[in-house]
Amino acid sequence: MIEEKYRQLAEIALASVKGIQRTGVQVLELRDRYFKTLMPLKGNTNHVGIMYAGSLFTIGELTGGLLHLNSFDINKFFPIVKEINIRFVRPVLTDVTLEYELPGKEAERIQAEAETKGKADYDLDLEIKDAQDQVVALVHGLWQIRKFPEGMANPFQKS
Amino acid sequence: MIEEKYRQLAEIALASVKGIQRTGVQVLELRDRYFKTLMPLKGNTNHVGIMYAGSLFTIGELTGGLLHLNSFDINKFFPIVKEINIRFVRPVLTDVTLEYELPGKEAERIQAEAETKGKADYDLDLEIKDAQDQVVALVHGLWQIRKFPEGMANPFQKS
Repeated sequence: MIEEKYRQLAEIALASVKGIQRTGVQVLELRDRYFKTLMPLKGNTNHVGIMYAGSLFTIGELTGGLLHLNSFDINKFFPIVKEINIRFVRPVLTDVTLEYELPGKEAERIQAEAETKGKADYDLDLEIKDAQDQVVALVHGLWQIRKFPEGMANPFQKS
Repeated sequence: MIEEKYRQLAEIALASVKGIQRTGVQVLELRDRYFKTLMPLKGNTNHVGIMYAGSLFTIGELTGGLLHLNSFDINKFFPIVKEINIRFVRPVLTDVTLEYELPGKEAERIQAEAETKGKADYDLDLEIKDAQDQVVALVHGLWQIRKFPEGMANPFQKS
């Protein structure tokens, strides 16, 4: 379930990046510091009928955007992706899902550091799983949150 | 320039993976063991107007497919991507390009190993550059070529 307060934000976030929207990735669940996403196999196969590596990257990388919406003050900070490593563990023949919960203390630590220093890095280890609950890809990502400079427009600002 | 013997193969390779085709990535040059590709900014921006991380991944990952076509015996071997690391160095505000030439001796070594052992890994360091020739992303990729098992259909077989 997507918590009502995040519904519109999640829709805008996905719709505003065509490269994400084109894959048909879905946000299944979104609540404070937690999400679950799904990448359909349909529309995302490669020349031999398994899921394209780039679509697995997309569901992994989307993590930084979603956790930003549901873990940090989006009126004060914006997200940056710095580095992503993705290891392809087995061929993917079904839809895949990814879920992650950022511990509250970790969210507080990151935000406090960004408040003081103007920015803060955080890295995550993620597992992408197929319909049989097998791990198909391992993602290690490094993201950053930064304070908006004075006068910079916030694309997610609530009006 | 795309060498005539690779033209049709390159078109099939791109057209057969919707996730690649959707980005509008172009193969500018393709000859033995060398390629140059271009990812347009248009259609590949994120919510703040810079190039989407996933489109940078796509142009990087495509390397394995193109080098497979122009460096190895595609009637004997097929390619696998094992792991990709991508580091985002600066925001991208223009089209980007990627070019690479695999040394002939390295191609021979990889193919000889796959001939003997049935498979061979190879890793590459790649630079994605913007229109000002600045490096915008660094890719480290690990690919593998494998011998077709008996009876396995080769999607790129020349008929």
